[in-house]
Amino acid sequence: MTTHAPAGLFISFEGVDGAGKTTQVERLRDYFAGMGRNVVVTREPGGTELGVQLRTMLLHGGDIAPRTEALLFAADRAQHVAEIIVPALERGDIVITDRYLDSSLAYQAGGRELTVDDVRGLSMWATGGLLPRRTYLLDVDPQVSHRRLTHGEDRMESAGYDFQRRTRQEFLNLARADSARFLVVDASQGIEAVWNTIRNDAEQLLGGAAASTGMPEISGIPEITGDVRQTGEHSS
Amino acid sequence: MTTHAPAGLFISFEGVDGAGKTTQVERLRDYFAGMGRNVVVTREPGGTELGVQLRTMLLHGGDIAPRTEALLFAADRAQHVAEIIVPALERGDIVITDRYLDSSLAYQAGGRELTVDDVRGLSMWATGGLLPRRTYLLDVDPQVSHRRLTHGEDRMESAGYDFQRRTRQEFLNLARADSARFLVVDASQGIEAVWNTIRNDAEQLLGGAAASTGMPEISGIPEITGDVRQTGEHSS
Repeated sequence: MTTHAPAGLFISFEGVDGAGKTTQVERLRDYFAGMGRNVVVTREPGGTELGVQLRTMLLHGGDIAPRTEALLFAADRAQHVAEIIVPALERGDIVITDRYLDSSLAYQAGGRELTVDDVRGLSMWATGGLLPRRTYLLDVDPQVSHRRLTHGEDRMESAGYDFQRRTRQEFLNLARADSARFLVVDASQGIEAVWNTIRNDAEQLLGGAAASTGMPEISGIPEITGDVRQTGEHSS
Repeated sequence: MTTHAPAGLFISFEGVDGAGKTTQVERLRDYFAGMGRNVVVTREPGGTELGVQLRTMLLHGGDIAPRTEALLFAADRAQHVAEIIVPALERGDIVITDRYLDSSLAYQAGGRELTVDDVRGLSMWATGGLLPRRTYLLDVDPQVSHRRLTHGEDRMESAGYDFQRRTRQEFLNLARADSARFLVVDASQGIEAVWNTIRNDAEQLLGGAAASTGMPEISGIPEITGDVRQTGEHSS
């Protein structure tokens, strides 16, 4: 029996733009805060000062090679984990991040040049193996999310639609491969219906054995796993 | 028998600051240029426009986590290889770079947090497995290089000396482990003596079977090795 202090809870939101992540992140933050928990809301890319610079570079940096891009996203994630996420979890806070490594897998590895295994390997190294305890995938047809983003004022061109459809499928594949971590939520429903699903799940996460960080015991990754570890303690 | 066009030649210089790399890089450039070869002289970090931004970030970026730093150096290297080095080698040019992945191994992996294998793994992924045909390690006692840099105007403090001594030893370890690629040159000699050693070696590199890029056949690294490959052709 170990006697570590209760560790925090690490949650990520994933999904294509327009799926409604921002709204649900805010609701979940308010829900946890209402229960008296400290909540850190953050994002990728750009969750740190260095990350903001990297984000600018990635968005406006001209002709970035695919491997360079993957390494820059991984650098952003490494800094985010070391500077924001791990310290918060060590304090026992709840961390909610808008996008994490699944976005890299779905967006970068969907392309031509890099494999999912390549990108996952980089991210797992960058994060010291830190995965969320829960990932909410807000799943929606790209046509629907596009209408939300543009208020229905234009139609998505077909190349964009193909890309978004592949990305959505990639997210769903990731969720299927790790069903213990993912909860797929039908985001074509209204905000309240989506929120009810998430709140019910979050309630269970806070109870009982689920109140761990989701930090795995991975050997050979020395830096972070030595300090934050899965406690398996009950909050009751 | 393949009929590829003769590939270029890829050379790196390594060593602590003040070892005399800049002078020897210029001599070697002039030597090759005098033989009518196209020569590209470049450097790490900062060999590309994106790399210059990353270099600034690395030098002034505040509190950068060790993994973040390693990923940023790898990103710089990935862009350098994709944008500058591989295109030049494909044209048949000679590429001389002031620092390459051995500097990452000697400087970053000498520290507390990361292993040599970690850093090498990142760099090999970033570069698609591209190693120089020849690496000139200008080896010198850090006290000597420090006197050169400061014109003897101060003495190196002992913590700095310890770090430089470890870095020097790490370079020598790398050279011992890959003696086919490295040539260790005693840089405590005068400029002319160092240059004579390098010129004699470079002359042999240009002759015969050595005129390959040094590009290894590494499986599982799809992006670059498919385009540039070791030709094994003779220039005679």
